[in-house]
Amino acid sequence: MDLQQMGDAAQQASYVLAQASTQTKNAALIAMAGALEQNAAAILAANEKDLAIARGNGIGDAMLDRLMLNSARLTAIADDVRNVVRLPDPVGAELESRVLENGMRLSRRRVPLGVVGVIYEARPNVTIDIAALCLKTGNASILRGGRETFHTNQELVKLIRQALAACDLPESCVQYIGEPGREWVSGLLKLDQYVDMIIPRGGPGLHQLCKEQSTIPVIIGGFGIGHMFVDESADLVRAVEVIDNAKTQRPSVCNTIDTLLVHERVAADLLPALSVRMAEKNVTLVAAPPALALLQNGPATVRAAEDGDFDTEWLSLTLGVKLVSDVDAALAHLRAHNAAHSDAILTNSLVNAERFINGAPSAAVYVNASTRFTDGAQFGLGAEVAVSTQKLHARGPMGLEELTSYKWVGQADYLIRE
Amino acid sequence: MDLQQMGDAAQQASYVLAQASTQTKNAALIAMAGALEQNAAAILAANEKDLAIARGNGIGDAMLDRLMLNSARLTAIADDVRNVVRLPDPVGAELESRVLENGMRLSRRRVPLGVVGVIYEARPNVTIDIAALCLKTGNASILRGGRETFHTNQELVKLIRQALAACDLPESCVQYIGEPGREWVSGLLKLDQYVDMIIPRGGPGLHQLCKEQSTIPVIIGGFGIGHMFVDESADLVRAVEVIDNAKTQRPSVCNTIDTLLVHERVAADLLPALSVRMAEKNVTLVAAPPALALLQNGPATVRAAEDGDFDTEWLSLTLGVKLVSDVDAALAHLRAHNAAHSDAILTNSLVNAERFINGAPSAAVYVNASTRFTDGAQFGLGAEVAVSTQKLHARGPMGLEELTSYKWVGQADYLIRE
Repeated sequence: MDLQQMGDAAQQASYVLAQASTQTKNAALIAMAGALEQNAAAILAANEKDLAIARGNGIGDAMLDRLMLNSARLTAIADDVRNVVRLPDPVGAELESRVLENGMRLSRRRVPLGVVGVIYEARPNVTIDIAALCLKTGNASILRGGRETFHTNQELVKLIRQALAACDLPESCVQYIGEPGREWVSGLLKLDQYVDMIIPRGGPGLHQLCKEQSTIPVIIGGFGIGHMFVDESADLVRAVEVIDNAKTQRPSVCNTIDTLLVHERVAADLLPALSVRMAEKNVTLVAAPPALALLQNGPATVRAAEDGDFDTEWLSLTLGVKLVSDVDAALAHLRAHNAAHSDAILTNSLVNAERFINGAPSAAVYVNASTRFTDGAQFGLGAEVAVSTQKLHARGPMGLEELTSYKWVGQADYLIRE
Repeated sequence: MDLQQMGDAAQQASYVLAQASTQTKNAALIAMAGALEQNAAAILAANEKDLAIARGNGIGDAMLDRLMLNSARLTAIADDVRNVVRLPDPVGAELESRVLENGMRLSRRRVPLGVVGVIYEARPNVTIDIAALCLKTGNASILRGGRETFHTNQELVKLIRQALAACDLPESCVQYIGEPGREWVSGLLKLDQYVDMIIPRGGPGLHQLCKEQSTIPVIIGGFGIGHMFVDESADLVRAVEVIDNAKTQRPSVCNTIDTLLVHERVAADLLPALSVRMAEKNVTLVAAPPALALLQNGPATVRAAEDGDFDTEWLSLTLGVKLVSDVDAALAHLRAHNAAHSDAILTNSLVNAERFINGAPSAAVYVNASTRFTDGAQFGLGAEVAVSTQKLHARGPMGLEELTSYKWVGQADYLIRE
C-alpha cells in the first residue's frame, strides 16, 4: 500500500470513528488489551527477533532495555490500555453554548482531529499507547516507530487491527508504516490532504526534519534547557532539597534542570552546601567564573563552564551553575538559553514570583517546586501523548483533550442574515 | 534592517509586551486611533500615491476600492481601534486552577503567543486592524501587506510606532516588511527562532506557499466549498429564503454557499420555486443531470455541471445544484468536495441534524440557518483576525483569545517529586 492509499484509508476510517460511540471505542480498547495478553507468546517471539538483530548491531543496553518486552511489561501495557478505557471521552462535549440576539443557539463542540501521524522512538509500548489514545479520541492514526521495533510492531499492529475488526471498526483506524527509509517519513509529512496533525517523538534531528518538510501542522516538543533560579529570599536549606530533586530524581528525562541560577547575594551561603549534596549524588558541576570560585573548595567535582555549556541539555548528572544579579537577569538568561519546557524560581517574594511566572518563556513555570512535575500523570491528565514546547494548539503535557479540535454549531429556525 | 534583526527586535519587544498592563496597551491603542485622525492629510496623501500607481498599472475597480482611503474610512478605522480598547484583555486569565493531591496549586494561565507574522492583501485597514489586535493581546507583530499599499502602509506603521513610543512601548512591537519580492515572504516563513505563528490572508497560492515553506506554525483559513443540504423534511417555502440569503446576500465572500444539495424526494417541489427566486436574483444555476431536468423549464439561467464545478468556490452569483438520496450521500459529497468552512442542513429531523453536525468536515455547521453567520462579529467575538479552516489551535472565526497561548503554573512550598 502506498502512502496516498494509506492516507485515504485513514481519512475514511476517521469518518467512521467520528461517529462511533464511546461504548464502541471502549469495546475495541478492551479487546486490544485482551489480545495483548492472549497473544503474549507471539509478541514476545517477535520481540526476541528484534532484540537479536539489535544485539547483532551492537546496540547499547539502554536502548535494548527500551526495546525489550516480557510478560510483566505486556501486562502493564494492557493495564495502561484499560486505564484509557476508564478516562472520560472528550469528544462531543460542548465547550461553550449561548443564544445570540438573533435567536441562534451557537455552541462549540469538541470533535476528533481526524487523522494523526506519529513518528516515534524504538519503544513498543508507545505503539499501543498512541493507538489507544487516538482511538479513544476518535482519531485514525498512522504510526511510524523506530526501525529496531519492526517485528514487534508488526505483531502489535496486527493484533490491534484484529481487535478493531472484531468490534466492527475499520482496520484502517490504525495503520503502520513498516518500510525503512527516511523517504517514508518525508512522504508522510506531505499527506496534508489526509493527515491533520503530526507528532514527532524523538531527537532534535527528527523535529527539525518535521519543521522543515511537513506541510501538516506539527507539534514540536520535549526540548528545552531546564533552569532553576534561587532568589535571594529563598529558604536555602530547603532549596538544596528541591535542586537535588530536580536534577537527580531521574536525570535522563526532559523535565530535569540543566542550569542553576543563583542570586549573587546568597551564593556564598548556598553553594558550599550545594557542593556537599551534589558530591553525595555524583553530580558534576559546570560553573561560570564567580560561581566557580565559590565551588572550588567544595567536595563536588567542578569545572569551568565553556561556550555552549549553558545551551546543553545534559540528560545526565551534570549541572551548570551561574550567578545572576536579580530576577530580570535570570529571565534574560532563560531567554538567551532556550528555556521552553520547565523552569522554576525559589523565592519568598511575591513580586519576583509573579515576574518570573510571566516572564519565563516556558511551557511550565514553578514557584518553590521541582521541575519534575511536568508530566501528564502528575498533572492529572490521565494520559500523555507528548510534551509540547510550542505555543499553538497545546503547550506542556498533552492529554486526550489535546488530541481533539472543535467545530462551531449554529442551530436556528430558518434564520437568515440581515 | 534584515529579517534576523527584525525577528530579534520583535522577540525583545514581545518580552516587554507580555509584562505590559492592559492600561498601557489600551493607552497605546487610543494614541494610535488619535494619530490616524490627526494625520489624516498625510495618510491620504500617501494613499493617493498608491492609488495613482495602481491606476497606472491598470488595476481593477474592486481592488482600487479596497486600496482607497478617505476621511470617512479613516474615522471608521480609528473607531475600530477604539472598539478593540473596549474588548476585555484575554491575557492573564486562569483557564483552570486546582490543587493537586500533593498540595501544588496548578493552573493554566493565558499568555500572549509572542510574535505573530501576518501576510495580507492590499487593504490598508488590515494593517491597523492586525496591529491593534496583536497589541491588545500582548503580541509583537511583523506585517507584510500587499505591495499596492506600500506608501499608505509606510505612513500608517510610522504613526503606529510613534504612538507606541509615546506610551513607553518599544517601536518594534509593530514592524513592517516593505521590501518587494517573494524572497522576503520566504525569509519570514523561516524565522522560527523568533516568530510563533504565521497568519496568511490571501489566495490559495499564498496558503500553499506558507504550508510548503514555513517552519513556523501556520493558520490556514478562508477556503472551502460551502454547501447547503435540503433534507426531505425541510420547510420548502422557508428553505428558498435561506438558500437565497446564503447565496446572494454578499456573494463575493467565503461564507456563502457554492453548492446546493437537494434530497431527491423533494427536488420536484423545491427546484421550480428555487428557479423563480434565483432568476429574480440573477443567479446562474449549474446542475447535475437529474436536477438539470427539473430546472430546464424554469426562468433561471441553467447549464449542465461539468468536471470541477462542484470543486469551485464561485465567489459570485453562481450556484451548483445536485440531488442526493439522503443525509449520508450529502455528507459523502461534502467530504469529496472540500467542505471545510461553513455548511448547512435544512431539516426537521433530529437524527439527520445530529448526523450532519457530527459528519460534516466543516469549521462551522448550521441547522436551519444561513451559512453567512460564520464571522467574528456575528459570533460575538468582538474582532476577527482570520477564519481558520484547519483543526489545530483555532477553527472558524478567530478572535482575541485565538491570538493567545497558555502556560502551566505550579506553585507549592518547596515541593519535590517522590
